[in-house]
Amino acid sequence: MSKQFDVVVIGAGPGGYIAAIRASQLGMSVACVDAWSNHLGEAAPGGTCTNVGCIPSKALLQSSEHFEQAGSHFKDHGIDIDNISLNLKKLISRKETVVKQNNEGILYLFKKNNISFFHGFGSFSGQTEGGWCIKINDSSNTDIIAKHVVIATGSSAREFPNLPFDEKLVLSNDGALRLDSVPKKLGVIGGGVIGLEMGSVWRRLGSNVTVLEAMPNFLMSADSQIAREALKVFTKQGLDIQVGVNIDSIKIIGDSVSINYKDSKDVHKELIVDKLIVSIGRLPYTDKLNYSLVGLKVDDKGFIGVDADCRTNLPNVWAIGDVVRGPMLAHKAEEEGVAVAERIAGQHGHVNFDTIPSVIYTSPEIAWVGKNEQQLKQDGRDFRVGTFPFLANGRARALGDTTGFVKVIADTKTDEVLGVHIIGPMASELISEAVTIMEFRGSAEDIARICHAHPTLSESLKEAALAVDKRSLNF
Amino acid sequence: MSKQFDVVVIGAGPGGYIAAIRASQLGMSVACVDAWSNHLGEAAPGGTCTNVGCIPSKALLQSSEHFEQAGSHFKDHGIDIDNISLNLKKLISRKETVVKQNNEGILYLFKKNNISFFHGFGSFSGQTEGGWCIKINDSSNTDIIAKHVVIATGSSAREFPNLPFDEKLVLSNDGALRLDSVPKKLGVIGGGVIGLEMGSVWRRLGSNVTVLEAMPNFLMSADSQIAREALKVFTKQGLDIQVGVNIDSIKIIGDSVSINYKDSKDVHKELIVDKLIVSIGRLPYTDKLNYSLVGLKVDDKGFIGVDADCRTNLPNVWAIGDVVRGPMLAHKAEEEGVAVAERIAGQHGHVNFDTIPSVIYTSPEIAWVGKNEQQLKQDGRDFRVGTFPFLANGRARALGDTTGFVKVIADTKTDEVLGVHIIGPMASELISEAVTIMEFRGSAEDIARICHAHPTLSESLKEAALAVDKRSLNF
Repeated sequence: MSKQFDVVVIGAGPGGYIAAIRASQLGMSVACVDAWSNHLGEAAPGGTCTNVGCIPSKALLQSSEHFEQAGSHFKDHGIDIDNISLNLKKLISRKETVVKQNNEGILYLFKKNNISFFHGFGSFSGQTEGGWCIKINDSSNTDIIAKHVVIATGSSAREFPNLPFDEKLVLSNDGALRLDSVPKKLGVIGGGVIGLEMGSVWRRLGSNVTVLEAMPNFLMSADSQIAREALKVFTKQGLDIQVGVNIDSIKIIGDSVSINYKDSKDVHKELIVDKLIVSIGRLPYTDKLNYSLVGLKVDDKGFIGVDADCRTNLPNVWAIGDVVRGPMLAHKAEEEGVAVAERIAGQHGHVNFDTIPSVIYTSPEIAWVGKNEQQLKQDGRDFRVGTFPFLANGRARALGDTTGFVKVIADTKTDEVLGVHIIGPMASELISEAVTIMEFRGSAEDIARICHAHPTLSESLKEAALAVDKRSLNF
Repeated sequence: MSKQFDVVVIGAGPGGYIAAIRASQLGMSVACVDAWSNHLGEAAPGGTCTNVGCIPSKALLQSSEHFEQAGSHFKDHGIDIDNISLNLKKLISRKETVVKQNNEGILYLFKKNNISFFHGFGSFSGQTEGGWCIKINDSSNTDIIAKHVVIATGSSAREFPNLPFDEKLVLSNDGALRLDSVPKKLGVIGGGVIGLEMGSVWRRLGSNVTVLEAMPNFLMSADSQIAREALKVFTKQGLDIQVGVNIDSIKIIGDSVSINYKDSKDVHKELIVDKLIVSIGRLPYTDKLNYSLVGLKVDDKGFIGVDADCRTNLPNVWAIGDVVRGPMLAHKAEEEGVAVAERIAGQHGHVNFDTIPSVIYTSPEIAWVGKNEQQLKQDGRDFRVGTFPFLANGRARALGDTTGFVKVIADTKTDEVLGVHIIGPMASELISEAVTIMEFRGSAEDIARICHAHPTLSESLKEAALAVDKRSLNF
């Protein structure tokens, strides 16, 4: 007889493995099924985030940041170096070590939490009395039965029409993380988070980078004031960012890639690059679930239909993370994973979609939570804005990184914080205080009245909050 | 006739200049008097913090951090450098540039806020109908009259008995920031914040550093678990830290300093060093105020007596920052400065002494807010503790800095957060979220339920909060 579990989670990305752990903590018998393998064929749980996303990109960003610091800023610090050269193989292998640590960490967590892990694709194979039948395409074609199924199969990079990823010349986020030499000319289609992060890494390591973005403005998901600053800074750093372009064709010609496009003024142009990163969004990864067999509702884009609580149209089948509506963010998937496990256990798990932070790990980093100015204008809401530049922050000066600013938006009448937007050093870490304030529905005055350690970058959030009331102290 | 002001602030350190700005924002006529000069004799407002404290030490910490990264960690990142050498003159001059930017920033703020600045010592010279007479020992011996006086004259380093600071061999925080060569052997008397920060800087730049501390345990102001970790890490880094020592004598012998002491086992020892930093605390700086003329109450240690609202025994005379009770911290002084200005204006300024964070800018950084475990035990309070190591944090792994942990202490019954203690990367910035939670009297469960961006160091705070309830997810 097939082994039975209270909960079977399909996918061991940040949503899936966290859901499995939480379910196990709550006393349920849990299995987690994941197909990802490393180059040795070993199980590599952690999904896109751990294997070809957040974690390896941050490892490369850190190394390339050191490389740029050494090349451009060490002299100012009184550090003289004779020759600086890049050992790309070592840099990439450090990244792989970091990824492997994370893979192994998750396998350890499965063991510690008594979670049965299966290495293979999980798919629906029917229904029995005990629950849903899940078949795993591992060496022994294991069949297991799940009282509850949590689908957390994530997403994969969208290809440009008729231009499959070969990961040699045409790169997804995966290939962009493991080039074996620094391309002289690098093209990036799509100026979103992944395009900017990867473009930044390779620019710092020496590439000439051109980013082509179809939208009429840069970083349209961000607050427009932040986006303008980002465009200014990235351009100054040497990224050639072109918005409002219209791609006509992309062709592989020998060892190069040729992109024919119209620029924002409708002028025909050709860009020839050594490597091309295509980062034009991601698609939910549901193909291999065999969902039609059981009648699971999946929309024409591949997203699984769920309610606000991540319930699908089938009883006891849940879906979380990138395969459902909402932002494709690891921490959003994690929150849903915890909440679903708690709901299965009869608790009242909750995800506050209004306080999920967004981060772009460029240098300077960009992070925000809540609404931006253009959204609030569209909502017709009355609000006040306070900004504070890192240029006026003592810690930023001491660090030698004064780019960017903090922007706090608060309701005119109640002073409730409606959004916080940061571009600057350590924005990714500074945003956590803003999320906390918003979870407590705090006001700009609250932030302004909280003691912030001196000298810290976080004082800039306090000053921006003071600026909402036109009384910042250090600017 | 002498010029009259609503408010005269004596001292332009972080407490004083902030008090002056806030008073001006509230519509009062304000003067600020400060004696600090740079090496050209120009006014250098900002006090100890800006000139010889927080700001320059952070500049040196950053530069020395780069130097150590380059020497010890670049190889792991795939960055090869041939020779690395230190241009100490440049390093120190960068620090001086940072200080000057901050001095000029404050002068600009005075101008912008219509604050009259006087460069000289301010002291009491009597009382008239219009208020207190303040005499300034500038070139024209200006006399001004103040309706309200705010004393913010700060503190100065305490000397070892019979061993004055010569800033050549025997160094205060001032001299420790401007050595013209890296001492081969450096001694530090006192293992507090300043001793550790300065010891760390010079160790990274190549000194052999010995820290002698009289207290029986290391870092007794910190949570003892944090202090144990810190001792372990600093010792591993190469700092020779000895606690429970008893100094018999310190003598200058030629170009060296000889320290005779008994170690914790009462064994006589001699330490000979090239330079000695004495960091055994700071004394309130009140000598030059001529306070006895007006009958201002000052205790035998030099502290000005104030109530909880910073009122002295004299009407309309206030004192803030290092010259009064409470921790000698720039941000504590700032909070008092704002509150006093608001009280003068008839508002109800408030400082919450229970949520003032403490930071030590070593590497790893140490930061905390609220009570530590030993304090809570002494109070007889029932509490639960959760910790989470940065070793299990994805961002820390990607950064290549996994030292330390986060510790959350919460009330057993109510789950209210009573203290948060961090040793690890960016602790100084992570603590702001903890302060915010404590200001809202939030619970560990609150932190655990707030979405934290992935991958960030701040997730470790969330995990430590989960650990309070024994349900951390990633450890």
